[in-house]
Amino acid sequence: MSLSEKGIIDRIRRHSQSGSAELLLGIGDDCAVIKRGRGLVELVTTDTLVEKVHFDLAWHPPELLGRKAAAVNLSDVAAMGGRSRYCLLSLALPLGFAESWLDQFMAGFLAALTEHGALLIGGDTVKSVGGYVISVTVMGEAPEAEILLRSAARPGDLIMVSGPLGNAAAGLEICRRGLGCEKDSWRQLIAAHLDPTPETVLGRILAESGLVNGMMDLSDGLATDLAHLCCESGVAAEIDGGLLPIADNLRDAAEALGCEPMSWALSGGEDYRLLLTVPAVNSEKLQEIVRRELGREIVPVGRIVNGKGVVLIDGAKRLDISYHGYDHFI
Amino acid sequence: MSLSEKGIIDRIRRHSQSGSAELLLGIGDDCAVIKRGRGLVELVTTDTLVEKVHFDLAWHPPELLGRKAAAVNLSDVAAMGGRSRYCLLSLALPLGFAESWLDQFMAGFLAALTEHGALLIGGDTVKSVGGYVISVTVMGEAPEAEILLRSAARPGDLIMVSGPLGNAAAGLEICRRGLGCEKDSWRQLIAAHLDPTPETVLGRILAESGLVNGMMDLSDGLATDLAHLCCESGVAAEIDGGLLPIADNLRDAAEALGCEPMSWALSGGEDYRLLLTVPAVNSEKLQEIVRRELGREIVPVGRIVNGKGVVLIDGAKRLDISYHGYDHFI
Repeated sequence: MSLSEKGIIDRIRRHSQSGSAELLLGIGDDCAVIKRGRGLVELVTTDTLVEKVHFDLAWHPPELLGRKAAAVNLSDVAAMGGRSRYCLLSLALPLGFAESWLDQFMAGFLAALTEHGALLIGGDTVKSVGGYVISVTVMGEAPEAEILLRSAARPGDLIMVSGPLGNAAAGLEICRRGLGCEKDSWRQLIAAHLDPTPETVLGRILAESGLVNGMMDLSDGLATDLAHLCCESGVAAEIDGGLLPIADNLRDAAEALGCEPMSWALSGGEDYRLLLTVPAVNSEKLQEIVRRELGREIVPVGRIVNGKGVVLIDGAKRLDISYHGYDHFI
Repeated sequence: MSLSEKGIIDRIRRHSQSGSAELLLGIGDDCAVIKRGRGLVELVTTDTLVEKVHFDLAWHPPELLGRKAAAVNLSDVAAMGGRSRYCLLSLALPLGFAESWLDQFMAGFLAALTEHGALLIGGDTVKSVGGYVISVTVMGEAPEAEILLRSAARPGDLIMVSGPLGNAAAGLEICRRGLGCEKDSWRQLIAAHLDPTPETVLGRILAESGLVNGMMDLSDGLATDLAHLCCESGVAAEIDGGLLPIADNLRDAAEALGCEPMSWALSGGEDYRLLLTVPAVNSEKLQEIVRRELGREIVPVGRIVNGKGVVLIDGAKRLDISYHGYDHFI
């Protein structure tokens, strides 16, 4: 097979149709967007997790897997600036699964929904002859005037991220090597992989601020996700390697494991932080709002420019890193 | 695994929450129902098809599998009396899948959506380490006053079905035995399995008529589906074995294959016909409407009574067939 995931999606998108006055946005962003009454839009997203591809039961406790299956979808709604409302869950369960596994998975899944204001309203349970397959659909809402799109980045925007990059990739590597919580400082990295937190509250604050141009969540790594955003916006991006928020515990883990921190930060997927582009004139005001409301920092990592692709500026070097992320198919 | 599918769903349902004023119906019917403006409700459903569980690529052409993956979800919206509007598709694809397979699958999937007025608006594509897994979510709409629920059957209602029963089960058996279209008369049975037609138009006519009490689609076989409907409505059902619509070509196939036609009709799944309950006083008028509008017949097969469970009346015998197949009892 030669098709990348982007290739498959482009192929499906070409097949796909448009033509409903209420459908503001179909395939191509974190969520589809449907016009509803009273100035509101409905946001819809779906994500599937496959055992041995997206998770490994050897180290993923069922309760945290339940939380994560919810989180990766809640994150897509947050990335449009929306509030999650409803959820559907399709579970393919192998013969011989333990009832206690299902109970713990559901406890985690429902707890995550509740924390973020969403309700489970339907689903399907089927037998699997392979491993577990978890398919989730989340429906959210937002004021139409506030939603933030991948296609709205403009040359001159600062590129910002909502937290340290690469932690989930580091945590995955620690789990893969069976190292567990050998060091206290690794606990946070492992949690970033096992139990990511969707940026539900921050997403709404950014959307309400009116200060942001483009936004999406970081699920496949900065290099790939930013390339998607640039492609949808018809712009290019320059990343300043020196600005990437790389945590001390990540550097520590990278040294211990013989890995490259910058590679985790750029290509490691599943951070579920927000990636946003902000007119330079708005950036300080936006940082102040986020500091005041949440006591957190959003960090500039580069700028949107005219052109195509994503370039990493690392000292004197300029490297094209477009789509150098986690891809399921290559 | 000791839990039945009903057991799993009941377990999840116990975990699940309610508590949104807009959510009219959560888990337990063909679709969840959410109040939208202007007297309309949104209907949402999800269904997953797993290779070697729900389909076999040895005999299921990709284009027809695409049509079926759409159809089983469109059928759930039809079963509430709704119109399908939007669709999300999650595909787990094994490494090494053929691009031509994907193209044909998508052509069939999108053709079925188009025929029934729905648009593909989003999805996810992931790698599978097992076989193909196809998860579909369909969102529809209907006037709130018209939706037809599983919970609305009342004692005295006639139980009706919208077409012959067991054809899909017969078609599956013919395919399983590798018999293909040996006889012209089997073609229709095979098509019922490979390419079921959701009752989109009929569902709307029944909903608009105002003459129907309870409704759902026949996906798991009359004995099981009717037991679900009775359970949700707090009633019992009596099926008259002599009234079951069993087609001549099904009897022919059953004889050739050494199978029991009544067993296919009662326990064979995937017919995707509508199962409805109609106040006796309305039944003739409703049949006239369906005959006039579609030139088709809806057929009485029994009646709703007080009590619990589903009983088959077969000559002098009365057999409880709730959630089971006829063949368990003979």
